Amino acid sequence: MALRDEIFEQPARLRGLIDSQRATAEKIAAEIRKHEVNFVFLAARGTSDNAGRYANYLWGAHNRLPIALATPSLFTYYQAPPLLKNALVVCISQSGGSPDIVNVLTEGRKQGALTLAITNEPDSPLGEKADLLFELGAGEEKAVAATKTYTAELVALAMISTALKGDKASWDQIDQLPVWLEHSLEQEAAIAAAAKAVSDMQRCVVLARGFNYATCFEWALKIKELAYVVAEPYSSADFLHGPIAIVEEGFRVMSVATSGPVFDSMRDTLLKLREELAAELVVLSDKPEALDIAQHPISLPVGVPEWLSPAVAIAPGQLFAYHLAVAKGYDTEQPRGLKKVTHTR
Amino acid sequence: MALRDEIFEQPARLRGLIDSQRATAEKIAAEIRKHEVNFVFLAARGTSDNAGRYANYLWGAHNRLPIALATPSLFTYYQAPPLLKNALVVCISQSGGSPDIVNVLTEGRKQGALTLAITNEPDSPLGEKADLLFELGAGEEKAVAATKTYTAELVALAMISTALKGDKASWDQIDQLPVWLEHSLEQEAAIAAAAKAVSDMQRCVVLARGFNYATCFEWALKIKELAYVVAEPYSSADFLHGPIAIVEEGFRVMSVATSGPVFDSMRDTLLKLREELAAELVVLSDKPEALDIAQHPISLPVGVPEWLSPAVAIAPGQLFAYHLAVAKGYDTEQPRGLKKVTHTR
Repeated sequence: MALRDEIFEQPARLRGLIDSQRATAEKIAAEIRKHEVNFVFLAARGTSDNAGRYANYLWGAHNRLPIALATPSLFTYYQAPPLLKNALVVCISQSGGSPDIVNVLTEGRKQGALTLAITNEPDSPLGEKADLLFELGAGEEKAVAATKTYTAELVALAMISTALKGDKASWDQIDQLPVWLEHSLEQEAAIAAAAKAVSDMQRCVVLARGFNYATCFEWALKIKELAYVVAEPYSSADFLHGPIAIVEEGFRVMSVATSGPVFDSMRDTLLKLREELAAELVVLSDKPEALDIAQHPISLPVGVPEWLSPAVAIAPGQLFAYHLAVAKGYDTEQPRGLKKVTHTR
Repeated sequence: MALRDEIFEQPARLRGLIDSQRATAEKIAAEIRKHEVNFVFLAARGTSDNAGRYANYLWGAHNRLPIALATPSLFTYYQAPPLLKNALVVCISQSGGSPDIVNVLTEGRKQGALTLAITNEPDSPLGEKADLLFELGAGEEKAVAATKTYTAELVALAMISTALKGDKASWDQIDQLPVWLEHSLEQEAAIAAAAKAVSDMQRCVVLARGFNYATCFEWALKIKELAYVVAEPYSSADFLHGPIAIVEEGFRVMSVATSGPVFDSMRDTLLKLREELAAELVVLSDKPEALDIAQHPISLPVGVPEWLSPAVAIAPGQLFAYHLAVAKGYDTEQPRGLKKVTHTR
């Protein structure tokens, strides 16, 4: 059972990453500071793209960096890459081998931009071509669905952000991440029960906002990949802007509502979904106020700062998708239609 | 029936826009040229955000501008706006009144960035605060689901791009848009038949790539808003990267496959979905090669250049969502859960 093993391997892998790669993060930050970087141009696909969504919030809020998410086909099919003057080009890829992502990095170098690769394979085309390399050190990922490389990508982005800020308190918080992740995995019984309770579902939405916008995308992706459910991720703000029309009695909504500035807005959305629209809710939260609204509450450890909560909150999401697939009777190790490395142009 | 009327009003509204606003586009382009713009920072929600996705491709491919899509909550809840040095801040909003979008514009001005508002309401907070204003002139939109303001936003973005390029051939192509749009609306019978044939669906995906990435998002949004179907939009490249796992026999896939560099890739994806996975396809295309793959083909007019095809292809998508709602017996004028202007922070 490689998938479940790799989910539970995450605290130890992150411990290793945090202890060994701080100097790498500091070196990368020093190089970035030497350049005039007006914005970040970020290329990634699938799970790594969701890590990019985290960077969009974290590097924006903590480092004031605007982030453009690349449209790789402009570099391949259209051969009309944007001008990357004063950009930091960041490519995130587990395998470091997807040709379209490598293309973005190559173009960035050609235009003279500073390039950074975040990958689990330093000897890959991406790792070899980048000016700066952050190696994830997650070990071989045997399961087809990515789990431990995702949390490693999040932590890599958090470490680089903290090195850029030069802030001791944030380093101390990062240091606690593996323990928080362990605590979140201790909820497996409640997670499995929630997955079993909704195991007849064929469609759902997954809502979050702010830093955990990335979490709702990645949780939805695992649900799709492993349990073949049409699970659509949404910012709760965008969801209220129209798509909420799909919610009828008993409609399943997954949600992440952690402490922080967007919590009240998330709680109000959950209340509306439960009380006005009679939706059935699975809620991940560190606050009783949100857990009490859900038919299927899943507790997150308390005391986690919001900016690090995505790395803690996704673990129960991964386990939920795993148990949903098990309850549905699917093969969690060889999900249909999936390959480990996809060669998109 | 305001909704259907407004869908059919689009050719005339675009005619008016193209004939009256070319000077505005040229003026905006001249101002942009005077500034050192390294990237575009774009803020929008819902339908207008999908117009932003079009800008991401068009302004990238034709004007080599990288585009960062804003995360409005960084400006409101987190009060940590990114640095907008050398950015052009673009805000797109039908009403010009959503507080979070106005916030992005205000912050852009505060930081000294050039700001552009694209709105149907010039007297709105957005219209009044922006350095540069492009008025959509779509007339009052009575239906709750946005249609004619979306195509007007696309054309506004195409006109500004063309003014920046200073390219006569592109202006001539824009000039033909209203006629192409008329031709695409002539397919109403085939569109209504396709909608009726899949009217029992509760979930689907909507696929496209390249310029029509925006179209699959907007088509999916109309299907959700009007017919309460969980319709998830996807780049066909990202879809192959994992989510394709959800496709089983008879699974409904909507798709846009127009002539252009990504056509072969789209056709291959459609062939795989039909032949290997036995999916049921609704395909919008100007090419028999793609139409022949679909159980429910919908013809688009031939001769439309790919960069303008999103404004032509969405009209059948809008009509499809309308007829799907009718076939399901829903109220197309007052869809549940929707308000015309959403005041998100």
